[in-house]
Amino acid sequence: MTIQDKPTGVALWRHVADGIERGIADGRYGAGEKLPGETELADIYRVNRHTVRRALATLAERGLVRAERGSGTYVESPKLAYPLRSRTRFSEIAGAGGREPQAQLIGAWDDVATRDLARQLGLKAGAPLIRIEALRLADKTPICVGTNWLSAERFPDFGKVYERVRSMTKALAHYGIKDYRRASTKVTAGIIDATDATRLGVALGRPILIVDSIDVDADGTPLSATHSRFVAERVEFVVDSGSL
Amino acid sequence: MTIQDKPTGVALWRHVADGIERGIADGRYGAGEKLPGETELADIYRVNRHTVRRALATLAERGLVRAERGSGTYVESPKLAYPLRSRTRFSEIAGAGGREPQAQLIGAWDDVATRDLARQLGLKAGAPLIRIEALRLADKTPICVGTNWLSAERFPDFGKVYERVRSMTKALAHYGIKDYRRASTKVTAGIIDATDATRLGVALGRPILIVDSIDVDADGTPLSATHSRFVAERVEFVVDSGSL
Repeated sequence: MTIQDKPTGVALWRHVADGIERGIADGRYGAGEKLPGETELADIYRVNRHTVRRALATLAERGLVRAERGSGTYVESPKLAYPLRSRTRFSEIAGAGGREPQAQLIGAWDDVATRDLARQLGLKAGAPLIRIEALRLADKTPICVGTNWLSAERFPDFGKVYERVRSMTKALAHYGIKDYRRASTKVTAGIIDATDATRLGVALGRPILIVDSIDVDADGTPLSATHSRFVAERVEFVVDSGSL
Repeated sequence: MTIQDKPTGVALWRHVADGIERGIADGRYGAGEKLPGETELADIYRVNRHTVRRALATLAERGLVRAERGSGTYVESPKLAYPLRSRTRFSEIAGAGGREPQAQLIGAWDDVATRDLARQLGLKAGAPLIRIEALRLADKTPICVGTNWLSAERFPDFGKVYERVRSMTKALAHYGIKDYRRASTKVTAGIIDATDATRLGVALGRPILIVDSIDVDADGTPLSATHSRFVAERVEFVVDSGSL
């Protein structure tokens, strides 16, 4: 059985989707460019427009293209491959993908530990915390918003320090923390809320990847708890199971 | 500073959300039960209904409660903690969570390798494949739909074998595969489509976790490529970085 046989059981729309995907992979349809219209694609692949729409819907669901109402279908930039491992540094990950990493401080506030945060940080409920909200971008495209909580007693004025150095690694170094690692990572998904939608530049109703993690110092003492929201269309987590 | 001080900067709705969360954690509000109404919660926490609604919306977004239009707010079952590691077996994961695992075969079809699938499986584009769709449940709650592709030449009649044994591990054992492991795992998020929404018993527009993975045999030869869609409200992936 070869592909020329057009074997039964293989939907036509998958052939069309595969053809368009190949076009994206080989650069015929470049990132950010508009695809040919439905009628033109129907001519190219000798199928009807319904079949083209099904193919485009599948590609959109996989994040390869993006339909813009009343305008057409555009090729998305490739997803940023984001490894989830014990030494996760956004700047290194974006840099490894050939993209320019950037962090923008949204704000820093005094906060107190909820029961959940207290448990994660090894503190008492009600302990004073500092909450940092920051936006992370790769090549000027917003990738995620992260909320970090740290002990206000251990890290006085952390917000001011972070604002100056714009990097968690550098801000922690200011307090003598030379190294830290990810002790626990939990991943789920959700729908973006209005505040994050504005910050990340995506439409309401779009899916996000939600990551809750705890960073610890060399002795295993918790340093910070993080609640991050990633634009699902722009990132793909890679779980490194090769070494397990 | 103690929590009794009601420190500035801590929103009232967070106190309410925290109180309800504690009630869920200590069993006062049990899984599947209906929470007190908004007016009653407003009385309990001495806040207005707007504050209660904000607290409930936050808990709903985190998957702890579920609002049912015209009925009330219900406590969700705890998310299934799903480790992403090299030996991922749904039955063991659900079992470890004290839940009854179950697999339902949706169907098996002849298929051919797209360029992408061929690369993942180490085959030529157009190679004959078997495609298996299966639903996985824990305590009768649907958790995920998975699509598996395997070589039809290496695994003839795989669909029939799977239908009989209802387990990927047992079906592979039928072909002499004693062990297999996860070689690569990629995670992103999306919005459920109409077909999966019906299969998984969730409303349209809800978020899903999308996992693309490749299983290999003891020699590292690819066995199957899998595209799984998990109900985000019902599962939380745990990335084991402790051993890295």
